[in-house]
Amino acid sequence: MKLEHVGIAVKSLGVSDELFEKLLGKNSYKNETVEREGVTTSFYKTGDSKIELLEASNTESPIAKFIEKKGEGIHHLAFGVENIYDEIKRLKKEGFQFISEEPKDGADNKLVAFLHPKSTNGVLVEICQEKA
Amino acid sequence: MKLEHVGIAVKSLGVSDELFEKLLGKNSYKNETVEREGVTTSFYKTGDSKIELLEASNTESPIAKFIEKKGEGIHHLAFGVENIYDEIKRLKKEGFQFISEEPKDGADNKLVAFLHPKSTNGVLVEICQEKA
Repeated sequence: MKLEHVGIAVKSLGVSDELFEKLLGKNSYKNETVEREGVTTSFYKTGDSKIELLEASNTESPIAKFIEKKGEGIHHLAFGVENIYDEIKRLKKEGFQFISEEPKDGADNKLVAFLHPKSTNGVLVEICQEKA
Repeated sequence: MKLEHVGIAVKSLGVSDELFEKLLGKNSYKNETVEREGVTTSFYKTGDSKIELLEASNTESPIAKFIEKKGEGIHHLAFGVENIYDEIKRLKKEGFQFISEEPKDGADNKLVAFLHPKSTNGVLVEICQEKA
């Protein structure tokens, strides 16, 4: 599997976009709100992977809850797969647990599913497939 | 900057190598102990980036302290740079703080330096340069 992106939870895209533009020496190339997931995102190219900054778009957002509990920081790793349904089947067979086994629409034109961090060494792992 | 690798703190490489081999569907391609940093590492290719599992090689290891405080999970993001000395200069000018401003020998034939997570949104950021 290829690392597609790293998601980072931030309180304010205004503040953190300025910070990451300085850090990475380049501008964010896309902003997108996924209301269903409660996130507004900002993307940076970092080789063939991306950094995705995630700001809560409402108080019930998983990002708001994450920051309340753990503070700002790395939220998840996302791996790109060819066929998300096959990959969910393969990973379940290997004993991994999913937060939701039904792929959902995510940011960046992707179908996404999340594995439970209890089954992946404390790392929240997303698998994602580019939508046709 | 290019994302070079993601470092993940684990209690036991024995347990976690088995887990990540199942997750990523491939084997670790390298193991290396960096005694000076107190870590034993295991690497996986994930596109043009890598996953680096980190196990403490002694009780004073930063990895042992990290796991004691936060549990297993993502430890740092590492970005590859052409010239680490120039990059440290650039980032200091931009207001970033370094844990140590003098690059040190790291795993995987790299010179490495770490930025302080207080200046980078709670993310421990490494910059690294391939040694000649």
